[in-house]
Amino acid sequence: MTEEKKEDNTIYVGKKPAMGYILAALTQFNNGAKEVVIKARGKLTAKAITVAEVLRNRYVPDAVVKDVKIGTEELTGEDGKVSRVSAIEISVSKKEA
Amino acid sequence: MTEEKKEDNTIYVGKKPAMGYILAALTQFNNGAKEVVIKARGKLTAKAITVAEVLRNRYVPDAVVKDVKIGTEELTGEDGKVSRVSAIEISVSKKEA
Repeated sequence: MTEEKKEDNTIYVGKKPAMGYILAALTQFNNGAKEVVIKARGKLTAKAITVAEVLRNRYVPDAVVKDVKIGTEELTGEDGKVSRVSAIEISVSKKEA
Repeated sequence: MTEEKKEDNTIYVGKKPAMGYILAALTQFNNGAKEVVIKARGKLTAKAITVAEVLRNRYVPDAVVKDVKIGTEELTGEDGKVSRVSAIEISVSKKEA
């Protein structure tokens, strides 16, 4: 039983179906997390919003969207070219009981 | 010269290339708007983030992302079926000079 760190409660949304990320976030809450941060880049930012919304509406009714940050990140490809992509960070918190 | 209303400064991001929406937002700022709200639904939410980020990084350096809201909207199709889609609302404001 190590002390839980806030940084560990991050879900990176990738190419798999949204449900897997929703369940991953749900598991974090069930394991005692007070807040889960959902992150994504590029086109996957749309999926991150869906993950947060379905999580909150269907699985964790006492959760609220605490903060949404958008930004731009630089990615360096295999050829050394730098490309810029949009990014999102959605913080979902459980209300205090 | 009618009085400008805040509600008019909304850009709905659709299927066209991002640049058109970026220029529409830029035009609003150039016409004196202090704040522009960028809205999108479904997969287009990812494009809305890009519109806000490119606008801010490349065209309106004195603008900041003031607020980002995410939510779920219900759409009724032609067949009467109700589907739910994610939505985003990004408020971009000019800093006071």
